[in-house]
Amino acid sequence: MLTDRDILDARIPGRDLLIVTNTTVAKLYLAKLTGSFAQRRIAECILPDGEQHKTLQTAGWVFDALVANKMNRDATVLALGGGVVGDIAGFAAASYQRGIGYVQLPTTLLAQVDSSVGGKTGVNHPGGKNLIGAFYQPRAVIADTNVLATLPDRELKSGLAEVIKHGCVWDPLLFNWLDRSIPQLLARDAEALTYAIGRSCEIKATVVARDERERDLRAILNFGHTFGHAIEAATGYEKYLHGEAVGLGMLIAADLSHRMGLIDAAVKDRLRDVLVRTGLPTEAPRIGAARAYELMQMDKKVVAGAVRLVLLEKLGRAIITDQYPKAALDATLAEHFK
Amino acid sequence: MLTDRDILDARIPGRDLLIVTNTTVAKLYLAKLTGSFAQRRIAECILPDGEQHKTLQTAGWVFDALVANKMNRDATVLALGGGVVGDIAGFAAASYQRGIGYVQLPTTLLAQVDSSVGGKTGVNHPGGKNLIGAFYQPRAVIADTNVLATLPDRELKSGLAEVIKHGCVWDPLLFNWLDRSIPQLLARDAEALTYAIGRSCEIKATVVARDERERDLRAILNFGHTFGHAIEAATGYEKYLHGEAVGLGMLIAADLSHRMGLIDAAVKDRLRDVLVRTGLPTEAPRIGAARAYELMQMDKKVVAGAVRLVLLEKLGRAIITDQYPKAALDATLAEHFK
Repeated sequence: MLTDRDILDARIPGRDLLIVTNTTVAKLYLAKLTGSFAQRRIAECILPDGEQHKTLQTAGWVFDALVANKMNRDATVLALGGGVVGDIAGFAAASYQRGIGYVQLPTTLLAQVDSSVGGKTGVNHPGGKNLIGAFYQPRAVIADTNVLATLPDRELKSGLAEVIKHGCVWDPLLFNWLDRSIPQLLARDAEALTYAIGRSCEIKATVVARDERERDLRAILNFGHTFGHAIEAATGYEKYLHGEAVGLGMLIAADLSHRMGLIDAAVKDRLRDVLVRTGLPTEAPRIGAARAYELMQMDKKVVAGAVRLVLLEKLGRAIITDQYPKAALDATLAEHFK
Repeated sequence: MLTDRDILDARIPGRDLLIVTNTTVAKLYLAKLTGSFAQRRIAECILPDGEQHKTLQTAGWVFDALVANKMNRDATVLALGGGVVGDIAGFAAASYQRGIGYVQLPTTLLAQVDSSVGGKTGVNHPGGKNLIGAFYQPRAVIADTNVLATLPDRELKSGLAEVIKHGCVWDPLLFNWLDRSIPQLLARDAEALTYAIGRSCEIKATVVARDERERDLRAILNFGHTFGHAIEAATGYEKYLHGEAVGLGMLIAADLSHRMGLIDAAVKDRLRDVLVRTGLPTEAPRIGAARAYELMQMDKKVVAGAVRLVLLEKLGRAIITDQYPKAALDATLAEHFK
């Protein structure tokens, strides 16, 4: 699809294009993509690969490329890569000349099922993930499942964590299907991947359409993310892939939900089983409960000093609350972060 | 008004406040402002003074202050200062946690009549002014004319340039009133300043309400700005105050309008006379026509490679067009930039 000129021409507006990608993806797909366009003025901005490079400075390089190539309000930014590239490129498009168009061309499963949809853009700050950014919708998202063939296994599993999340908070039938389909997904069966991606995008689009700016409902998509962000921040965004940290966070959130009597132990155990069979980690780093709690304070869901958490009420239904016994949270943090 | 607790409490939401200001304004008003609040948690971020500091790096310092003080989505940024402080603080508020509230407390005439109203925020890039930013409306604009007492004369005159602009593009009666009222305005007569500020805000709010994102109408407020931005960029944002550059830009735009037969020489001469009596410069820097034209290319109004200009059709009515004889533009640039 990344080489289908008709689709690209139909979905990507403008004469001037800046392709933002990273060193890894550039080697695989940049020449193919640029070769698929006719009649466009194309410039490139190739960033280093990795979440540790999702910074304001790196966004600055995208601005530099836009300026150096004299791109104006009618230019379009193409984000060719995973969530990091999409978040940086989207934020740069949101802010360049107070907003130009951008199109997501996600090349990882995580980006195809989650980060490329919904218009959350941004970069990290040393104090926390995604603290600088904008809500800014792409003109289009073009997800080509063929590119997943070159995705490392670990990245594939990281992406599946977000599909599991969609099952947990919205769709018990998706969760049941996942439970049965892990072998096919890990074997990259095209039909299974297409269903997982399509259903994830449907769920995310439904939730975002009801609450784009995350005033309430959209926050359920952060299930596992408050704990997960703390894990990523504590380990310098280097040790865990995003989906791995989210998987751990979902487990911790399910544990707290269970301690509060919201869900049975069986639900928590089933989630753990699915994560294990997917090949995702289930042991959180031993950063200590106090440090974990401190890092959770910087979460964007914090309102008036209270950390709001996404918990499970049952499989397929999430709640957002700051009403939880401090003792239950403390016990949960102590259990997982030691 | 900056010391009126009732007004501040009524207009400024939230418990947590970050006051963004600069070294000059901080000496004069920061203690007064912080002393006017009760029951708030207040942090400060004091930036260096000057347009040359309106950069992505400086915006980064505001993010650092927000993070260091553990400010969350319910925090409010207060921009206490002129246009530079307001633009940086507004952009930081727009981008921090994908958008928190901010309130403008403009301390210069230029900010009170123009930059604090309308929600244009941003910082400069070495390649051009305001190339990085967001459309993001403040929760409130609180303009206290008392603070203009400490404003340097040159800053006052710079602010009057934007009032003159509002007369030129929208309101011939305002222009006539200005023509008669220059002595009172320069003497800082409270009644005259209040009228100039109030009428400017009305005009700007009317235009912005019809076209917030500058798809068409709002661009008339950039009268004088395409030439003015080129002058500022060519001189490193240091030699001219913004209003001074805009004054020069209006003169050049009026000259081109006259060369194209849109307005009589009398209108152009009357504008020059008003600028001279206001004490604004009327001689552009000798940067050369070619360099001026090159810098104009980076203007945000450029669409599909064509520089759109705001010209006068008559006093009080502007047009936006990319249909002008290249020869007339060349002659105008040669005349003013030598």
